[in-house]
Amino acid sequence: MVSPLNPRMAATFSPPVMEARRWLNGVEFTHDRPLINVSQAAPVAPPPLALRQAIAHAAINLDEAHLYGPVLGNEDLRAEVATRWSKAYDGQIADNQVAITSGCNQAFAAVLATIAGEGDEVILPTPWYFNHKMWCDMQGVHAVPLATGDSLLPNPAKAEALITDRTKAIALVSPNNPGGVEYPADLLRAFYALCERHGLTLLLDETYRDFDSRCDGVTSAAHDLFQDPDWDKTLVHLYSFSKAFRLTGHRVGAFIASPARLAEAEKFLDTVAICPNQLGQIAALWGLQNLTDWVLGERAEILDRRAAITEGFPQLNGWRLLGCGAYFAWAEHPFEESSDALAKRLVRDAGVLLLPGTMFTPEGDAAGKRQLRIAFANVDRGGISDLFQRLQSLR
Amino acid sequence: MVSPLNPRMAATFSPPVMEARRWLNGVEFTHDRPLINVSQAAPVAPPPLALRQAIAHAAINLDEAHLYGPVLGNEDLRAEVATRWSKAYDGQIADNQVAITSGCNQAFAAVLATIAGEGDEVILPTPWYFNHKMWCDMQGVHAVPLATGDSLLPNPAKAEALITDRTKAIALVSPNNPGGVEYPADLLRAFYALCERHGLTLLLDETYRDFDSRCDGVTSAAHDLFQDPDWDKTLVHLYSFSKAFRLTGHRVGAFIASPARLAEAEKFLDTVAICPNQLGQIAALWGLQNLTDWVLGERAEILDRRAAITEGFPQLNGWRLLGCGAYFAWAEHPFEESSDALAKRLVRDAGVLLLPGTMFTPEGDAAGKRQLRIAFANVDRGGISDLFQRLQSLR
Repeated sequence: MVSPLNPRMAATFSPPVMEARRWLNGVEFTHDRPLINVSQAAPVAPPPLALRQAIAHAAINLDEAHLYGPVLGNEDLRAEVATRWSKAYDGQIADNQVAITSGCNQAFAAVLATIAGEGDEVILPTPWYFNHKMWCDMQGVHAVPLATGDSLLPNPAKAEALITDRTKAIALVSPNNPGGVEYPADLLRAFYALCERHGLTLLLDETYRDFDSRCDGVTSAAHDLFQDPDWDKTLVHLYSFSKAFRLTGHRVGAFIASPARLAEAEKFLDTVAICPNQLGQIAALWGLQNLTDWVLGERAEILDRRAAITEGFPQLNGWRLLGCGAYFAWAEHPFEESSDALAKRLVRDAGVLLLPGTMFTPEGDAAGKRQLRIAFANVDRGGISDLFQRLQSLR
Repeated sequence: MVSPLNPRMAATFSPPVMEARRWLNGVEFTHDRPLINVSQAAPVAPPPLALRQAIAHAAINLDEAHLYGPVLGNEDLRAEVATRWSKAYDGQIADNQVAITSGCNQAFAAVLATIAGEGDEVILPTPWYFNHKMWCDMQGVHAVPLATGDSLLPNPAKAEALITDRTKAIALVSPNNPGGVEYPADLLRAFYALCERHGLTLLLDETYRDFDSRCDGVTSAAHDLFQDPDWDKTLVHLYSFSKAFRLTGHRVGAFIASPARLAEAEKFLDTVAICPNQLGQIAALWGLQNLTDWVLGERAEILDRRAAITEGFPQLNGWRLLGCGAYFAWAEHPFEESSDALAKRLVRDAGVLLLPGTMFTPEGDAAGKRQLRIAFANVDRGGISDLFQRLQSLR
């Protein structure tokens, strides 16, 4: 006999980014036409030298950099987040409402575990972030899709119609992955009120907030929810240090929630991680304390690339840009074939790697077949121009 | 309304090490009688300077050290583990049977998720490693306790009597945490055969294998299970780089299993971690390639501390040493009170922090009340002598 596999894991789909990488196998890319990889939301370069030096200095001089730390993260980093977020959101966030995690995916996993179990329901607007859907599947939590249509903005009334006695939370991502849209403050407020009314948790993933065109995340923020003195009865905020400081390889994220929820999440984090790695936390703290202006420069560059996308798209025959912001463009393609077949053909025929809409939508979803995601953050204006030419020349 | 907490998480107990740390609040420790902390299996010092320099060098010079890597870990580290483990265990372990994780707890979590779901059963010898029990609780998997008695060795026939049609796996830890006992090779072989016969997975956590008194983990190993050409149908091996190289703060572990199981675990790891952090992986690889002799020296030191424990214990009135090995001693105390009350009193009255047996046993377990764990690895012979004096003077 062969030992068993859990059928629930078997039913969960494979990691999309890893699957897409396998499409590259056997395809040759030339110097004239190198691969344009717009598949993953990853900075293309390492963090600035000063930050790398700070990490190196800690590795050599700081004993604690190599030893276990507290499950919920180092106190200095938690306090720094609390102070800076309180200022940016003009609200009251205490140190003991901040937890540090091994990346933002882990923050979502830990928080969801405190909210929902077997048979419970969580509402996710579609297109969704695939790891949110995958975690629900693995946990036996039903991810209830809330179609957003061409606006890519979820509708609170439509969400309310989906609420049942098993619904525990609504999870939003703004600026959105994969859609790129920035949710208006009043829309977030409406979802917050909806969750409050029904006793649900509002999970708000703001991984891309530092690249929001409307606010800088330092002195201004995209919503006023933290101004409610009772925000922690309803809201959970998720954040990643990976994008702002180019720390994807260090795995540091955070979430902000009630101390009671942190106490529950601590059990999960202890069991799944013991603690976030120390050098990543040291890097995140150093970044918060020293890289504010640098991040604002990064933001300006990303916003410029976004402008290159929105300016170029109208010239692209038959293509339609539905959403664009932060790291992502979400577009409709003009071909008969489904986006998953098109994505594989794009690798071979255009030297472009991107993820099809089918990876962000429920099985069989019509919109997912027509749409796809372009993660443009690591491609400069020249590369974006090349990308447009390659898409245009595809037949 | 206040948004909900998942009752299953609420029913899971709090992280024992964090709870024990809270017992220190308000207790004063003097220069004459400092705290002796034998609560956590943590090296007391950072890794050797050369390893810290290797980390620092990578942080400054290696771009990939800051960027996402493959979900299942870097190929060079996976290959290094495969080669070295094949030699030590005199078996065939391929690169694609090795996965790197963010610590060994995460390896257990990912592997269990591929094996068992809601309502399934996993057999755990007691005293058990609390994070194994906690993960089962969170996942709705029933952890079936297999009492080991004073020998601390699980009995295969007793285990077989616990197998039902929902049993999916048996999880063993050797050298054992918390019991310290080294499971004999023929006992491991008997459990392997039992699992093979019933189509179960044998999860074997060898986090402490580098400190096994019988074998060095370099040219010799504690069992011959990898010599079975079909080992990956039954066996999953778990490992941590934290103890051997003093990398607890870096979160790097590994597991070895069938490629099919790795493909399932990849879904979990992508969703919960995306990838193990890069600097930790670089440190682990450097350690494997450069610190073999240094680890053998560490092992000799730990074995000497173990000898100090076994030599000193018979002089300790009323106490009984049941198990001792790797980082742990497991002992029976002479007091009327339960071990959890005693542990708190030990902080106040003896300046000793350790974990009571109740944290490693099912609720109400009689043995757990009489027994406790001493994690002695970070206390030298002088400290062990002090520890004995303080335990002896307690009334």
